[in-house]
Amino acid sequence: MQSTCINLDELQPPVYVLRLGHRPKRDKRVTTHVLLVARAFGARGAYIAEVVDEELAARFRKVLERWGGASYFQLEMGVDPVKLVKKWRGEGGCVVHLTMYGLPVDEVVDRIRSCSKVLVIVGAEKVPRIFYEISDFNVAIGNQPHSEVSALAIFLDRLWQGRELRLCFPDAKLLIEPSERGKKVIKLG
Amino acid sequence: MQSTCINLDELQPPVYVLRLGHRPKRDKRVTTHVLLVARAFGARGAYIAEVVDEELAARFRKVLERWGGASYFQLEMGVDPVKLVKKWRGEGGCVVHLTMYGLPVDEVVDRIRSCSKVLVIVGAEKVPRIFYEISDFNVAIGNQPHSEVSALAIFLDRLWQGRELRLCFPDAKLLIEPSERGKKVIKLG
Repeated sequence: MQSTCINLDELQPPVYVLRLGHRPKRDKRVTTHVLLVARAFGARGAYIAEVVDEELAARFRKVLERWGGASYFQLEMGVDPVKLVKKWRGEGGCVVHLTMYGLPVDEVVDRIRSCSKVLVIVGAEKVPRIFYEISDFNVAIGNQPHSEVSALAIFLDRLWQGRELRLCFPDAKLLIEPSERGKKVIKLG
Repeated sequence: MQSTCINLDELQPPVYVLRLGHRPKRDKRVTTHVLLVARAFGARGAYIAEVVDEELAARFRKVLERWGGASYFQLEMGVDPVKLVKKWRGEGGCVVHLTMYGLPVDEVVDRIRSCSKVLVIVGAEKVPRIFYEISDFNVAIGNQPHSEVSALAIFLDRLWQGRELRLCFPDAKLLIEPSERGKKVIKLG
């Protein structure tokens, strides 16, 4: 397993995730899952729009410390999302908004792969109209309602063609050895 | 879009999802997302272990009625999960437990594709040991912590090689026409 694992640098272009509309009480678990997918599927960081949720950050940081990513994964909260999108585009990055109303991922992912860096926007309930307008790509993971968690995972999996599942975390303290029937966890360092 | 859409019959083998450990208050949103992924990614039905959660069922049925699936998608609650697994295996079906401790999906998915039918188990927090033992396959979507929502989506996407994103729902009342920047919803019937 370890011998075939790949480095973060092999997942290009670099991706950051912008989470819109997080409501600390209601979205506690779903936003945690969004962050876990971002980390596990090879994003370099995540932004939480408008809200600061220290409990969420603390929970997520524990995962980074145990399973790896603490040395590079950036989590920033309380950001102004429209400002961030404009700054991102000003720097030449692409902005991808995941929405069931958008274009099928398989039609646009090749173009997105040629961006210098990618900001992926995932909403909670209703996403304000402006994000449909200021994004470079409105992308659908199927045109059916499902979840921002699954949409983000499938998007990153398409972008990196499945290689992200072999990502290794050099600063991990825990490592799983895949097994047919048990739980094998290796403690490192 | 409609011209290239595929029928449920083209997604073989048939898949059902078994959700373990649902706690109505805490997992309300995550279990809803699990059900939405099951439907959108081509499962034929879902079982909720042990618990009956009428609110969850009512919310999900609204989606089935609007977006399609009501004519075939089976949702059963309060089932005994060990009994279900044993019954399933007795009928010759395969049981796949999604867990970060399991074997990489890309190593086992070809074998799973040759099953006559598949029951996919997704847990909430800690899954009792017995499910590791009575499943035919313990399958990891990457050996990192993320989410049962993303794990289920990637598993179904691997099983059906992306075709599930083009699934059409013959009994849908609403249909999205993919668009670059807007929200185009067609009302049918």
